Amino acid sequence: MSDKVKRFKKEREELNQMVLARDNIDIKRFFALDNAVYRDGALNAKTKELLGLATSLVLRCDDCITYHVIRAREIGATDAEFDEVMAIGMVVGGSITIPHVRRAEQLWKEMED
Amino acid sequence: MSDKVKRFKKEREELNQMVLARDNIDIKRFFALDNAVYRDGALNAKTKELLGLATSLVLRCDDCITYHVIRAREIGATDAEFDEVMAIGMVVGGSITIPHVRRAEQLWKEMED
Amino acid sequence: MSDKVKRFKKEREELNQMVLARDNIDIKRFFALDNAVYRDGALNAKTKELLGLATSLVLRCDDCITYHVIRAREIGATDAEFDEVMAIGMVVGGSITIPHVRRAEQLWKEMED
Amino acid sequence: MSDKVKRFKKEREELNQMVLARDNIDIKRFFALDNAVYRDGALNAKTKELLGLATSLVLRCDDCITYHVIRAREIGATDAEFDEVMAIGMVVGGSITIPHVRRAEQLWKEMED
Amino acid sequence: MSDKVKRFKKEREELNQMVLARDNIDIKRFFALDNAVYRDGALNAKTKELLGLATSLVLRCDDCITYHVIRAREIGATDAEFDEVMAIGMVVGGSITIPHVRRAEQLWKEMED
Amino acid sequence: MSDKVKRFKKEREELNQMVLARDNIDIKRFFALDNAVYRDGALNAKTKELLGLATSLVLRCDDCITYHVIRAREIGATDAEFDEVMAIGMVVGGSITIPHVRRAEQLWKEMED
Repeated sequence: MSDKVKRFKKEREELNQMVLARDNIDIKRFFALDNAVYRDGALNAKTKELLGLATSLVLRCDDCITYHVIRAREIGATDAEFDEVMAIGMVVGGSITIPHVRRAEQLWKEMED
Repeated sequence: MSDKVKRFKKEREELNQMVLARDNIDIKRFFALDNAVYRDGALNAKTKELLGLATSLVLRCDDCITYHVIRAREIGATDAEFDEVMAIGMVVGGSITIPHVRRAEQLWKEMED
Repeated sequence: MSDKVKRFKKEREELNQMVLARDNIDIKRFFALDNAVYRDGALNAKTKELLGLATSLVLRCDDCITYHVIRAREIGATDAEFDEVMAIGMVVGGSITIPHVRRAEQLWKEMED
Repeated sequence: MSDKVKRFKKEREELNQMVLARDNIDIKRFFALDNAVYRDGALNAKTKELLGLATSLVLRCDDCITYHVIRAREIGATDAEFDEVMAIGMVVGGSITIPHVRRAEQLWKEMED
Repeated sequence: MSDKVKRFKKEREELNQMVLARDNIDIKRFFALDNAVYRDGALNAKTKELLGLATSLVLRCDDCITYHVIRAREIGATDAEFDEVMAIGMVVGGSITIPHVRRAEQLWKEMED
Repeated sequence: MSDKVKRFKKEREELNQMVLARDNIDIKRFFALDNAVYRDGALNAKTKELLGLATSLVLRCDDCITYHVIRAREIGATDAEFDEVMAIGMVVGGSITIPHVRRAEQLWKEMED
């Protein structure tokens, strides 16, 4: 696991803990729900991660994209599958997604090396 | 095929022909590309339709959602798979997607009947 | 209560029931959470409805705006408070919110009459 | 001028008057500013209408698109210029703009006939 | 006042001056209007800052969020009020707002310390 | 050409090559189309760059804005033309575009010096 990925995971975890430590039940419920929807079900976890990745891409949320790129790699998505998700996101969301595609492909490649 | 679905397909096709009849090569290329990305590849066509559906949902494009709901049904997505895509889109995109989820579920049900 | 408002509430309720009747636990949890966040708390319910209205306006979700306009009226927001929410939403979200402001003001006025 | 265009203009004008009749100075200032930015300046009014059209398209605001399509026609934009704006908007904003492009091209054609 | 907040305010002020120094009357009018809408009125300034914060959150504008977090603290919003705004924004805008919620909560906490 | 601009162009070019080196034909076609729409046509290249800039601004894509600011300067847009595009984008897209306007104006000025 690259340093970049480790740092991302660590910072994300620390900030999540900080948010969850606050006394707001609705925020906690949302965080729980956000984990639940990506679990194996009628669709398997890999397909769900790709759905998370594609939706994050068209909504252009870099942190969300980074998270789902990491998860998609860990769960066994292939290069061609990853690129096809990028292609669909790019066509659906337009050229404004390209900077995010560049960064996603860069991270994908770094994790391979 | 319900009347609603038939009408949607007919109107979509007619307007697409009108747009393609215009003399702009870039618009034609975009339309061709928009068809190409959903074809079977490393990911199968069903998964790609679900990616198209989820991205359309979070971007809240009713016509796009209608199109991908119809395609997802035709290509054999199950009730549970469809609902899981709705759930992911709803969590990623928030409560503002709910009116679109309502209409998508309504169309899904109508096509079943 | 105007016919338009009654129809909106009835259709919304019927579609919500249809969605909730489906067998997806995450969708149900999201719907429950969506109700919970607008309840009286540190901020009172009226302020929360205005927050729901302003966020719906800048995200340009007509159904969401209609819902929060009705709720804001029922819960006792005044004309001036309503207009100030519209003004903030318009400045934050830009001229693309204007068609939604027009429809929101129209509904607000109809409910008054 | 087609009936559709007349109706659109009339309804828009009536609702604008209703909004302006309300007692909120900031909303009035925003409406004034919204008119001012499209006036002849360093860029001529036609170019500004095309900028208004392109931005409305990528933000997918149907009422805004209709307004700028009408204005662009009135101010003398040609078929090829119009199509090129549609092409740029489509590439920048992605396939989710296509339903709006269809409707814009349909209105453009109706105004020609 | 933390160094981070001081730096943010200083840079924001300098860039605002640079933009206002340019010779465009419409940009100046927009900046003036952007200040005006948050002033005490039918709704008090605190409520308006919370509306500014919630709309900035769902539109995922980090600079805007930072600005309104600082203003909300200065104007006396409590921890529980702040968290409830975050919760509403998160439910309305979905999980793509979470990275912004993390950063907003982090800044809120830093200002407390 | 400033160091900042050189660095931006170099990194953009390197990442584009990395993306194009991947084996996905649809991504390549999208990149080609993204170049094609800004070429001289019924509208000249300068007008098209301004359309690219305005749409990037309202969609708040910093990398896209940077790219079109550089291109607009290189192709001979004047200060007043640039500011008018900023003003239209700001009015259409709202105060959430202001942080991007600040950065765009800053880059525009740096390129002048």
